[in-house]
Amino acid sequence: MSDSSPFAPKAFPSLPAVAGVRLAVAAAGIRYRGRDDLLLAELAPGTTVAGVFTRSQTAAAPVRWCRGAVAKGAGARALIVNAGNANAFTGLAGEMASAETAAAVGRLFDCAADTVLVASTGVIGEAMPMDRLLKALPDAAAHLGEAGWEAAARAISTTDTFRKGSVGRAEIDGVPVTVCGIAKGAGMIAPDMATMLVFLFTDAGLPADVLQALIVAGADRSFNCITVDSDTSTNDTLLAFATGAAGHAPVADAADPRLGAFRDALNAVMLDLAHQVVKDGEGLTKFVTIGVTSAVDDGAARIIGLAIANSPLVKTAIAGEDANWGRIVMAVGKSGEQIDRERLAIRIGGIEVAKAGARVPDYDEAPVAAHMRGREVTIDVDVGVGTGAATVWTCDLTHGYIDINASYRS
Amino acid sequence: MSDSSPFAPKAFPSLPAVAGVRLAVAAAGIRYRGRDDLLLAELAPGTTVAGVFTRSQTAAAPVRWCRGAVAKGAGARALIVNAGNANAFTGLAGEMASAETAAAVGRLFDCAADTVLVASTGVIGEAMPMDRLLKALPDAAAHLGEAGWEAAARAISTTDTFRKGSVGRAEIDGVPVTVCGIAKGAGMIAPDMATMLVFLFTDAGLPADVLQALIVAGADRSFNCITVDSDTSTNDTLLAFATGAAGHAPVADAADPRLGAFRDALNAVMLDLAHQVVKDGEGLTKFVTIGVTSAVDDGAARIIGLAIANSPLVKTAIAGEDANWGRIVMAVGKSGEQIDRERLAIRIGGIEVAKAGARVPDYDEAPVAAHMRGREVTIDVDVGVGTGAATVWTCDLTHGYIDINASYRS
Repeated sequence: MSDSSPFAPKAFPSLPAVAGVRLAVAAAGIRYRGRDDLLLAELAPGTTVAGVFTRSQTAAAPVRWCRGAVAKGAGARALIVNAGNANAFTGLAGEMASAETAAAVGRLFDCAADTVLVASTGVIGEAMPMDRLLKALPDAAAHLGEAGWEAAARAISTTDTFRKGSVGRAEIDGVPVTVCGIAKGAGMIAPDMATMLVFLFTDAGLPADVLQALIVAGADRSFNCITVDSDTSTNDTLLAFATGAAGHAPVADAADPRLGAFRDALNAVMLDLAHQVVKDGEGLTKFVTIGVTSAVDDGAARIIGLAIANSPLVKTAIAGEDANWGRIVMAVGKSGEQIDRERLAIRIGGIEVAKAGARVPDYDEAPVAAHMRGREVTIDVDVGVGTGAATVWTCDLTHGYIDINASYRS
Repeated sequence: MSDSSPFAPKAFPSLPAVAGVRLAVAAAGIRYRGRDDLLLAELAPGTTVAGVFTRSQTAAAPVRWCRGAVAKGAGARALIVNAGNANAFTGLAGEMASAETAAAVGRLFDCAADTVLVASTGVIGEAMPMDRLLKALPDAAAHLGEAGWEAAARAISTTDTFRKGSVGRAEIDGVPVTVCGIAKGAGMIAPDMATMLVFLFTDAGLPADVLQALIVAGADRSFNCITVDSDTSTNDTLLAFATGAAGHAPVADAADPRLGAFRDALNAVMLDLAHQVVKDGEGLTKFVTIGVTSAVDDGAARIIGLAIANSPLVKTAIAGEDANWGRIVMAVGKSGEQIDRERLAIRIGGIEVAKAGARVPDYDEAPVAAHMRGREVTIDVDVGVGTGAATVWTCDLTHGYIDINASYRS
């Protein structure tokens, strides 16, 4: 593991237990030595599940497994996650490995295999060492309830330099509910969706379709608006589990006003985790927020924002603390989206740099350069054609990224 | 200027004079000190011109000027190129600067301003120092015919570490013709089209529409198939000039069989220059050739090839000499183009790594790793759905790229 991100929090946040969820971790030795690499979660009967997955054409076997399980709608009784091996591009053997893993957990918990969700992260194209994974399962099951959220977040990490967790609280119909989330991801981060694993657990009681609608909407403004390196994982997985243990009155519609506070809390957890993933971007030294306004529509605004966020030249300029706003112009131009060059305006750190298609006449680089020297950089671009807007988040591109990725497997 | 590319040729190739073309260079001090930064070419009356330009929505003023001049079809009497300032995103003042430059050259040569082609490369968003540019023009004009191709290539360079030139020879109707090309470009290289300036000069006699058809077709298999960093310049310009001084019989159609050998020579010059640009990719240590076969069509194959070529994770793995073919699978998956995961096959250095959607059973990494340690890396991907094919070229992503681009302006 490399040096910790400069944005690493001093401590993992304090996350409460979620009624209906019991966690265990284990060291299966799948790839890593001397650390936990397996997370097992037992979920109370009646737990619903929803999922958002990578759009990669080479999606990994566990992603395909989860898609099937979520679509089946039989609910969730367990989640099993391993780090170190992605079980991606492993052919039929990989499909069988995910199915066998689910079946083994099902036997432990006396539940159907298709109520067991499976996620994997790590190296692509290597066979999953099933013997080691299966051997570790009974020991993990024997210790259910002993692991906390931080241990869970650590067990699913790969190149992460800090553990990612977030909590939200709300009331549904006057009944307190909690949502806890953990995530892993530091590279191969790009929509759709950000390359990572995210698991959300709530004691709210929500039909699977309601939960699905909520996380799809939330992902579009969080995980689908972040990028570290434009690369899309084969294993991106966001799973949300609702145990219903809070015991509020049933809710049947995602638009039910009684869900307002819960939706806000859920969205805040998703955005917090998305930001944490960017803040652990491989080799980053800066956290960058890019706002785009006056695009044709929100989708166009996001594409323009991501063109800026993914530009190696913009990212290296930020790394070099160089107020090279010309590269922002370049990136806007290459996005392919409609803009009005004569109305294009750019702010860096809130300071007007360009407007009406040219540098501001009295441009003073000093305050902009001072902003660039800070840890958080904001870029705002107005493209002058409509009312579409979006915010995306990214990080700079540094020597650290090269160091990490030129030797990941060794 | 940084260290020379490991692919820098020992010497600039020997390029003959092209009848009807006279070159001069000058040190205008636009940005650089102590080097030539201005190229002036005088073209014989009757010279035709064709052009292919960046598709950026923020195209620079000189690009807009050239588009207009080429569309007008009045022919070309001169070319003026400056390095150090791109005259991009400079608003109305930038448009006026290009027009004023053309007018000044027109006065020197007693020709219409719209027969003067203008190109600029360098920093974006800064006003062109017109006084310095205009002051250097008469001196350059006084020395026309004294500069050779190497001096011309040097004058238009920015972060290039070597001069790029190429020559092709053919006969049209039994009459020998020559095509000489120079190029600049080392970063901000991506389709469409590769971020660079390319100027081709031939003594063939070709109507502008014939010349245009030839270079559009050639660019699609050369400059539009290379990428260094996925960034698209505001200033990409390919201009071709045909003086007609060779004196062969008229040709009226790009498909005329008498043009066969000339087309081949022209295409070879374009491909050679495109490869030279990649081989000067900022910070590169490896030259990478990516072949994609069995895509839905050639366009899809190119998109898949570029998805691989632009992936930071693939590029850093190559830099690290890591046979991490899983990242190739990832990049293929994110391209968005149709593939058959169960038929996907990958070769590295000609060695079969994966087939039928999984690693080959008897995979031996040793010969693949040996290939990765070489300077030239080849990747071949068969996506198993159709007959489309494409070849793209790129380089690795290294610390050198970060070094160059985190401090380009300073």
